[in-house]
Order: sequence, then structure tokens, then C-alpha cells
Amino acid sequence: MINSLSITTPRQGLHEITREVAAVVADSALQAGLCTLFIQHTSASLIVQENADPSAARDLEQWLSRLVAENDPLYTHTSEGADDMPSHIKTALTATSVVVPVMEGQLALGSWQGIFLWEHRRAQMQRTVIVHLGV
Amino acid sequence: MINSLSITTPRQGLHEITREVAAVVADSALQAGLCTLFIQHTSASLIVQENADPSAARDLEQWLSRLVAENDPLYTHTSEGADDMPSHIKTALTATSVVVPVMEGQLALGSWQGIFLWEHRRAQMQRTVIVHLGV
Amino acid sequence: MINSLSITTPRQGLHEITREVAAVVADSALQAGLCTLFIQHTSASLIVQENADPSAARDLEQWLSRLVAENDPLYTHTSEGADDMPSHIKTALTATSVVVPVMEGQLALGSWQGIFLWEHRRAQMQRTVIVHLGV
Repeated sequence: MINSLSITTPRQGLHEITREVAAVVADSALQAGLCTLFIQHTSASLIVQENADPSAARDLEQWLSRLVAENDPLYTHTSEGADDMPSHIKTALTATSVVVPVMEGQLALGSWQGIFLWEHRRAQMQRTVIVHLGV
Repeated sequence: MINSLSITTPRQGLHEITREVAAVVADSALQAGLCTLFIQHTSASLIVQENADPSAARDLEQWLSRLVAENDPLYTHTSEGADDMPSHIKTALTATSVVVPVMEGQLALGSWQGIFLWEHRRAQMQRTVIVHLGV
Repeated sequence: MINSLSITTPRQGLHEITREVAAVVADSALQAGLCTLFIQHTSASLIVQENADPSAARDLEQWLSRLVAENDPLYTHTSEGADDMPSHIKTALTATSVVVPVMEGQLALGSWQGIFLWEHRRAQMQRTVIVHLGV
């Protein structure tokens, strides 16, 4: 049971995809098992984070963008724009694959958890996330 | 085969849970497959790290707490205490899910590896870790 | 279906292992499922990253080595050399396990993605990566 989600990210930052992933789980009728997500990109990542208060997601984005600055004189990989090398580093510091259990037919997320695609490029992008469901 | 572990973390820092996870594996009688762990929180995380010398875990905690400081003027998500936003960032930089192979009926950890719940809040907390076993 | 890869890493930095992992997938004849990788070490990690331009991997290594410096006076875990404690921290900030979907008999990596073993020690090392394949 492998599906592919095509996600348009409007801009840099955390973009919640819990609803899209939950719909795949619901369609599958899987009752108990694992939902594994994999993003096919090196300048965007996946993260399970606080989804109750949007200020947490904004602070996460601001904090990481300060840590991984654009135009760092260290970078030699600069041909794809000022936000490209920082995007690779941010992806390395977060995750390309995440696994969420499925229990009673639903994603077994905690009360405050949501699944986010973290877009690290500044422009609107089209991203592909593979969703695997298994027992 | 999905179990839920309830873990009391005494304080901020790395709290080893290898024994608890190994007990779930032993009870299952699974001989070969995968043990997948998922923590249902956004201010505590999971990590596989050095468990031989406790100084490594202490240094990890100290280093990350220096990098992700409390009371950073950047934070706007501050209503839940000075250790709350740093906890979300530390969780984002480590992991919410980890997978460990099972071989010959045991967790296939390396000689120096242990599984830790990394508590990022200062107070004693009650945490839930989902343990999934599959072939 | 569990295999073990023994990898010699020549030096500190990202060492691509896509070919070795793809060979395990091809040998298995698995058509659709998941390939889960686990590294049995606490001073080397796994990462899925840009493999088209080697400058991205070099910049990643340089950036992380600047963030996680050797000889930091904070460290108390120093008996195994100046590159040991930084190696544990770098491992904590990246990943010990990664999952890549398998579709049509092949690793479902994006166009620019490769699988890397990130060696954090300075010396040549022998590393073990467990490869699990499942439906």
C-alpha cells in the first residue's frame, strides 16, 4: 500500500499535511500498523511538531533560519541561489523519513502533534511525499 | 503487535529506555524484523546514543541546551514557560520516531548503543512511547 | 530479509552508499515495500542528501564541523580523542535510522537524492549498516 502525495508549498516554513496523510490512512482501511512517510527532496523535510499554536511553527522556522544563515562565506555550493545550501543543511538537521503508528484505524499522534512538510526554499514548490502503509 | 510504554522522566536530559523496549521485544517472541518507536510528544524526543559512559549523555544535554537557549528574544511562543519553545526546537533537531532492527530475538543495537528518551522539559513528566514490532 | 553491510569509510565526511543499498534491494527481488537502514554506531550516522554536486556534501560537512567544534571546553567526555564527543553530537543531530520506500523493484529516491553514511571520526573506520527489507 504505497501512495504518493503531491503537495504545493506556498513559501518557506512549516506546512501542515496531517489531513492529507490521515485521508490516505482512512482510504486504506488499515486498522493497526505503521504509516511511513518519505520526502523525495533534499531541500525540504518532514517533521512531527506542535500544531495547536501556530507561533510554535513560526518560532521553529525563525530559529532554524538564524542558525543556518544564507550567504555564509563557508558555502561553495552556491549556483542554485542563496537559499539552496541552507535548505540542504536544514534538511540534514531534520528528517527525510518519519514513521507514525496507526491504531484503531487512525494515525496515533499525540494530542498536540501534527505532521508537517518543512519547506526550506523561498519560492512556491511542488513536493512529492511517498506514504507507505503496512501492518 | 503494538504496545504502549508509559515512562516517567525525572528531569531534563537523556533517560535510557533500552531495558523497557527490550522487554517488549522479548515478550513478543519476534525473532527477526523491526522495532519502531514513536513518542507522542513535541517537547521530548527519541535518540540512539552511547550508553557506556554517562558523561557522553551529559555533554550531549549540555551542548544542545547551550545551542537552544531559554529566553531567546526570538521566541514568541512563550506562554508555556521558558523551557517550552527550546523543547520544541530540540525535538525538531533530534527524532520523534526511530527504528531498530530485531535479529535473533533481540534488538540489533551496536556494542555502545542504547535507546534514550530525551526529556527537554525541566519538570518531571509522564511520556508515552508507542512500540511497534513487525517482520 | 535482513542484511548487514560492512562499509569502510576513508575519512570524516559523507560517504555515498546508494549503490551498495540498491544492490541489496535488487538481490531481494522485492517489488514494493520499505528499505530500512540502521547504523550500529554512535559516532557515524545516516542521511539522504543531494548526490549530484559533491560541493553540497562538502559544505554540509564543513558547516556541521564548525557548529560542533572539537576541543569545546564544555566537553567532559574527552578520553577517546578530540573528535569523539563532536561525533556523538553530530550523530544526534542527524539520524541513526532512515527508511526509503521501494517501488517497482527500486529505491524510490528523488532525482537528486543519494543515501550517505556520514562518518564523524577523522580516522578510517569500519562501519556496519543493517538493511531490512519488508512489504
